[in-house]
Amino acid sequence: MSVITIERKVLEKNDQIAAQNRKLFGERRILVLNLVSSPGAGKTSLLERTIGELQGTRRIAVIEGDVQTDLDAQRVASYGVPVIQIVTLGGCHLEAGLIRDALSNLDLSGVDLLFIENVGNLVCPASYDLGEAAKVVILSTTEGDDKPLKYPAMFLNSSVLIINKIDLVPYVNCDLNVLKGNALRINPALKIFETSCFSGAGIPEWCNWLRRKDVPGQ
Amino acid sequence: MSVITIERKVLEKNDQIAAQNRKLFGERRILVLNLVSSPGAGKTSLLERTIGELQGTRRIAVIEGDVQTDLDAQRVASYGVPVIQIVTLGGCHLEAGLIRDALSNLDLSGVDLLFIENVGNLVCPASYDLGEAAKVVILSTTEGDDKPLKYPAMFLNSSVLIINKIDLVPYVNCDLNVLKGNALRINPALKIFETSCFSGAGIPEWCNWLRRKDVPGQ
Repeated sequence: MSVITIERKVLEKNDQIAAQNRKLFGERRILVLNLVSSPGAGKTSLLERTIGELQGTRRIAVIEGDVQTDLDAQRVASYGVPVIQIVTLGGCHLEAGLIRDALSNLDLSGVDLLFIENVGNLVCPASYDLGEAAKVVILSTTEGDDKPLKYPAMFLNSSVLIINKIDLVPYVNCDLNVLKGNALRINPALKIFETSCFSGAGIPEWCNWLRRKDVPGQ
Repeated sequence: MSVITIERKVLEKNDQIAAQNRKLFGERRILVLNLVSSPGAGKTSLLERTIGELQGTRRIAVIEGDVQTDLDAQRVASYGVPVIQIVTLGGCHLEAGLIRDALSNLDLSGVDLLFIENVGNLVCPASYDLGEAAKVVILSTTEGDDKPLKYPAMFLNSSVLIINKIDLVPYVNCDLNVLKGNALRINPALKIFETSCFSGAGIPEWCNWLRRKDVPGQ
């Protein structure tokens, strides 16, 4: 019982800082998206494809969250966008305070699109608001079509679902219609894209949606 | 700082119960394996294949851990083995106390092999001893070959690594030699199997290892 109380206090404190982050993003007219998924679903690959597609039209920055290593930050930095790595040293999710600290080390001048790549974890990051405009959950077809039912909080708290690795559908037990039905059963408002970061399928549709997306504070 | 102290107390309490569970498993001569992985790496499919292969020679029982739903328990129960489902209602890992409670509802008479399927999460379950003889981490080739470096605690705390979905290697960016090298860099003592629960490849080798594995308390 005491543990539950502590957890609530942690979340309340987190939400206060998240609100401050959100206010800052609104003032600076930066669209902030929090990318969440299981390990290996393709968050970094999606970032690489998205940066490639939007380069020249949007000024992008990235905050990378990982339990260990700066491998993902290195991959993203090779595209020439500002990137900062948060290493959680075992922590299973990003918190709003970590984002606030990262922002003080990131040059946001001119940036209008900030991606936060969360720790690969389909459970804990669902509970932590970072101040983002929306959570984008990426699910690989290789994970199977039952995952929205088994990890409902993540799909309920996300605004966008990107079904990635659709090139692998012929080789895995994943029915896209069942997957989409399960996701919409949990959250009927989910905007769904189907992509392959390997072939590039669906990336233009996702990026067109990003281009049309209103920036907060406008 | 206070949060760290609380976390330590939670883990100390968990470890005490885990020691009691381990004592019980030793007295009853039950080999207990804690299956851990990302969501969708194939824990349940591996269980189905393993039960199929060992049926008639080992008496198996299963404890299923999920954030929501009893989908996995239903799949396993169809093989005619005793199974109990723990639904964590948002909890991101199993704890020793949940296993102790589950045991009081599970008929262990004659059982010599108990599988605990943890919540799909490559971070948090690494820290929680359940009283198992060993953690078995399952990693899908579709997750990429960098995961041992990015989630080192799980690979350090596991005794066995099962590289699953090897049938998909031709279609994904995963070099098996790099993956194994990364895993052994984190934990040189890891016993590694390569499997496909789709084709059945590698299942006999894994099950032979299980057959030869000493039961605690003998």
